[in-house]
Amino acid sequence: MSSSTTQGQDIARLIISCPDQPGIVAAVSELISELGGNIISLDQYSTGVEGGRFFQRTVFHLPGLVAAKPQVEAAVEERLAQRFAMEWSLTEADKPKRVAIFASKTDHCLLDLLWRHRRGELPMEIAMVVSNHPGLAEDVRTFGIPFVHVPVVNGDKAAAEAQHLELLQGNVDFVVLARYMQIISEDFLERVGVPIINIHHSFLPAFIGAGPYQKAKDRGVKLIGATAHYVTEDLDEGPIIEQDVIRVSHADEVAQLTRYGADVERSVLSRAVKWHCEDRVLRNGNTTIVF
Amino acid sequence: MSSSTTQGQDIARLIISCPDQPGIVAAVSELISELGGNIISLDQYSTGVEGGRFFQRTVFHLPGLVAAKPQVEAAVEERLAQRFAMEWSLTEADKPKRVAIFASKTDHCLLDLLWRHRRGELPMEIAMVVSNHPGLAEDVRTFGIPFVHVPVVNGDKAAAEAQHLELLQGNVDFVVLARYMQIISEDFLERVGVPIINIHHSFLPAFIGAGPYQKAKDRGVKLIGATAHYVTEDLDEGPIIEQDVIRVSHADEVAQLTRYGADVERSVLSRAVKWHCEDRVLRNGNTTIVF
Amino acid sequence: MSSSTTQGQDIARLIISCPDQPGIVAAVSELISELGGNIISLDQYSTGVEGGRFFQRTVFHLPGLVAAKPQVEAAVEERLAQRFAMEWSLTEADKPKRVAIFASKTDHCLLDLLWRHRRGELPMEIAMVVSNHPGLAEDVRTFGIPFVHVPVVNGDKAAAEAQHLELLQGNVDFVVLARYMQIISEDFLERVGVPIINIHHSFLPAFIGAGPYQKAKDRGVKLIGATAHYVTEDLDEGPIIEQDVIRVSHADEVAQLTRYGADVERSVLSRAVKWHCEDRVLRNGNTTIVF
Amino acid sequence: MSSSTTQGQDIARLIISCPDQPGIVAAVSELISELGGNIISLDQYSTGVEGGRFFQRTVFHLPGLVAAKPQVEAAVEERLAQRFAMEWSLTEADKPKRVAIFASKTDHCLLDLLWRHRRGELPMEIAMVVSNHPGLAEDVRTFGIPFVHVPVVNGDKAAAEAQHLELLQGNVDFVVLARYMQIISEDFLERVGVPIINIHHSFLPAFIGAGPYQKAKDRGVKLIGATAHYVTEDLDEGPIIEQDVIRVSHADEVAQLTRYGADVERSVLSRAVKWHCEDRVLRNGNTTIVF
Repeated sequence: MSSSTTQGQDIARLIISCPDQPGIVAAVSELISELGGNIISLDQYSTGVEGGRFFQRTVFHLPGLVAAKPQVEAAVEERLAQRFAMEWSLTEADKPKRVAIFASKTDHCLLDLLWRHRRGELPMEIAMVVSNHPGLAEDVRTFGIPFVHVPVVNGDKAAAEAQHLELLQGNVDFVVLARYMQIISEDFLERVGVPIINIHHSFLPAFIGAGPYQKAKDRGVKLIGATAHYVTEDLDEGPIIEQDVIRVSHADEVAQLTRYGADVERSVLSRAVKWHCEDRVLRNGNTTIVF
Repeated sequence: MSSSTTQGQDIARLIISCPDQPGIVAAVSELISELGGNIISLDQYSTGVEGGRFFQRTVFHLPGLVAAKPQVEAAVEERLAQRFAMEWSLTEADKPKRVAIFASKTDHCLLDLLWRHRRGELPMEIAMVVSNHPGLAEDVRTFGIPFVHVPVVNGDKAAAEAQHLELLQGNVDFVVLARYMQIISEDFLERVGVPIINIHHSFLPAFIGAGPYQKAKDRGVKLIGATAHYVTEDLDEGPIIEQDVIRVSHADEVAQLTRYGADVERSVLSRAVKWHCEDRVLRNGNTTIVF
Repeated sequence: MSSSTTQGQDIARLIISCPDQPGIVAAVSELISELGGNIISLDQYSTGVEGGRFFQRTVFHLPGLVAAKPQVEAAVEERLAQRFAMEWSLTEADKPKRVAIFASKTDHCLLDLLWRHRRGELPMEIAMVVSNHPGLAEDVRTFGIPFVHVPVVNGDKAAAEAQHLELLQGNVDFVVLARYMQIISEDFLERVGVPIINIHHSFLPAFIGAGPYQKAKDRGVKLIGATAHYVTEDLDEGPIIEQDVIRVSHADEVAQLTRYGADVERSVLSRAVKWHCEDRVLRNGNTTIVF
Repeated sequence: MSSSTTQGQDIARLIISCPDQPGIVAAVSELISELGGNIISLDQYSTGVEGGRFFQRTVFHLPGLVAAKPQVEAAVEERLAQRFAMEWSLTEADKPKRVAIFASKTDHCLLDLLWRHRRGELPMEIAMVVSNHPGLAEDVRTFGIPFVHVPVVNGDKAAAEAQHLELLQGNVDFVVLARYMQIISEDFLERVGVPIINIHHSFLPAFIGAGPYQKAKDRGVKLIGATAHYVTEDLDEGPIIEQDVIRVSHADEVAQLTRYGADVERSVLSRAVKWHCEDRVLRNGNTTIVF
């Protein structure tokens, strides 16, 4: 994928997917040109020319984008979407997505996101941090970000999730689970209505489930890893966004694997979040395309 | 860059560069569409919207490409090149580039290229292997490839280079120096008329010149590397195509650094050669764009 | 682990393991010193001070090693083995292990081992290459190494394995399966009496079994890998010696994953073989210690 | 190097270096055994048997270490140091080194050290953070660590350095320059009397001096890196402790290289600091041995 700076005012991103057929790239670029736009970056991928699905992310500059957006959307719908049976979305590059970050007691992923956000690396607005533990409140508030403690009282997870839904609905565009140690219910998933990114502390599909570093130690692997993925009903089975690994040795105890793993987790999660914010991650069944 | 298979019959690659301005992507894709082509892959990069230079690699499928090629070339010249002050080239994906590989005594880079070529990983035709030493003749001929021994007699390099030019001219599209241990003269560079790819056994610009592994040992670096670059008049200063490194320790003697380095050299060189064959490497002054 | 050159005449390696207790390092180094040896390198690891197991690899220089070896062995047995309930072995560094390499049709792992051996990177003697297919015969014989074709006739694997045992017994110190595509029977494993190293084309324990690159594509992983391990009765479950990975993208088809994977497989296998030859790999239950 | 946990009460580290000769390992381990110690970990390296220098790091458990330390030191001096012309030091593993961290405006290296320290990853006591700018005061104090603002007034660096020396002398065991943007004078180096670790934002020796990311962009390298080294009189020429790199592309502008580089810088610096705290880094002329 390109890493060039394609942020800023009057910059739009058109994300499309449709059955593959000749002429899609030309049709999209002609339309953008006609509307007065200038293409900055264009990535595409097809799962196969015959019967495959086509995906494209087009970044373009259009003077007066905010005012023109309804007109652009209408043109895309009429001129492209119907002709190509296209699913699409149009976003403004300088309009950051709003996110809620969920955490528990472990701080490394959360702090890394907060710090990168403050540095300007992550084009998002952090609406709130939600935790089932109060311990990270002070750290979070130092960054000037609201911290909401939602404990699970008497094991009543449903009540906690109801409170989560109230906090989230209408307020956020996606959720990040930054080592949040509670299982998300299917009911919550259906109702929340926004994508959820999770960081799993193993190189999936190896060591699914709890205690992956202990499992890695027992199996004697020579590399450990972490995986950022979208959350689906199947635990640890959702579409993978990003993964990475680090070399370990026989001499590393589980505690040391955990420390090494923390470094991989935070870097993998931050990349996944950044790419999601930039509309680079397209879902294709249970896999992702990352432009 | 995309790694998808974009080889095969009726597949063309259009490589362009020109001063950046609005409408280039649209103009290119419209033209390809009008000519009956279907865009498979499109990569672009601009050094800057204002006063920058624009580069694009477009891979498209066009039934009857071989017959239609003159017509396509005329259309590109008339409809694109003049309008955008464009430099361009059009290649057929299933027409492999012809290469001469130069080697001396060291075999690892040469054998790796021959083996990858035999496996079908490198879309090129190896016209010949040229060496100033006879030692690798048998290995090369095992692969069914001509081996030409051009010794430097009585230190007369000019005579050897004259012989090289005779062998190369009209017969090859590029040259690879696979640990060829002779300096190439400026005169040869001017006259050979095709790109030359070299592998340097250091992470340039560190340890320019001879003996990089000894220099690396003396400086106590913790990683060593290799660099594939186009050869220019300035030794070790040409545009870098690819680089990689490997971790070493204080305990590694120079001989061990050399062995580790050999692995990096061969993988870096093979990637650079593959990308060159696929028209993925565009020169931009003394740097490269790798799509 | 140290990579320094600890090869050569009069250099011995003492490999020990025993229940951990105070004084082992001192006892070993005192004995070596008394015998007139000079320790060049010493690595040790304990799984835990209380009730753990201790492992040590000691490389030492002893003038006249060949003549003195029986005396050294007697001293180790009397002074160390009985006192510490020690398992141990003593090898001469300049006495290469003898190996048989098994292959089928795929050449990358086999050729890489043959090349590295010829370059002097692998301190072993290749007694023979054994294959169930004749296709690689010429390549192997170019290296001056015997190639033995043992086909499975009418599905009679037992007959082929009987032939394998005849070839191997007394002739080799270990076996390498270099992408050998036949299942090894339990009976063979019991009778062969030497360690067998296999290369599996996935990052174990992910994608156990056949077709790992297809499985990796289906799961949408962002890195693929390879694993070298000792063969045990449990397929793909033996002690891991070495692993590595390479980054891939959504655009890489299974054929491309296979090509990338081949590079990882050959480098992982060659490292595992080298370390085994140097007595660096100690088995600890179903895991390894690599010094 | 081993990563096993070798921290805790009654654990000592003996660091030695001397001209190489037979019997050093045996003499050290015998002495430790006689004193009632149990060796946990032992690493050694020799630059060459003939005329080389020998280095060893021995970690051992000795009940009652604090009380016995003078006796151990006397025994090392009498029984080892004089016999082998040895330089040596003995440290207690659970006695953290005291450090002053110098920073300017850039926060990534500083914050990473503070986080890791709070998580228990770095066995050190942070005595103070010193900065020539006031901007990071609040961040630092959130961690409960003293922040001292020492501005350079009217360009009088000598006055600032005098103040630094007052703050440091007797209070710290080493200094970390965490992207501290002031040149350290030779006079200061001579007088401070403790090691200073610096992080340089390039893969030294490439791109020595200021502006390495701009230089990397201009040269078109495909990887950028960072280097942690001890500070000596020769700017950017001191012994390298650790290095790492990250892959970049033609599309990455200098601002993006700087962001990627920040990640490498903080991880490289934190590893170098950890190893220094654990007495793993031994100086050998202008290089280091890292056990």
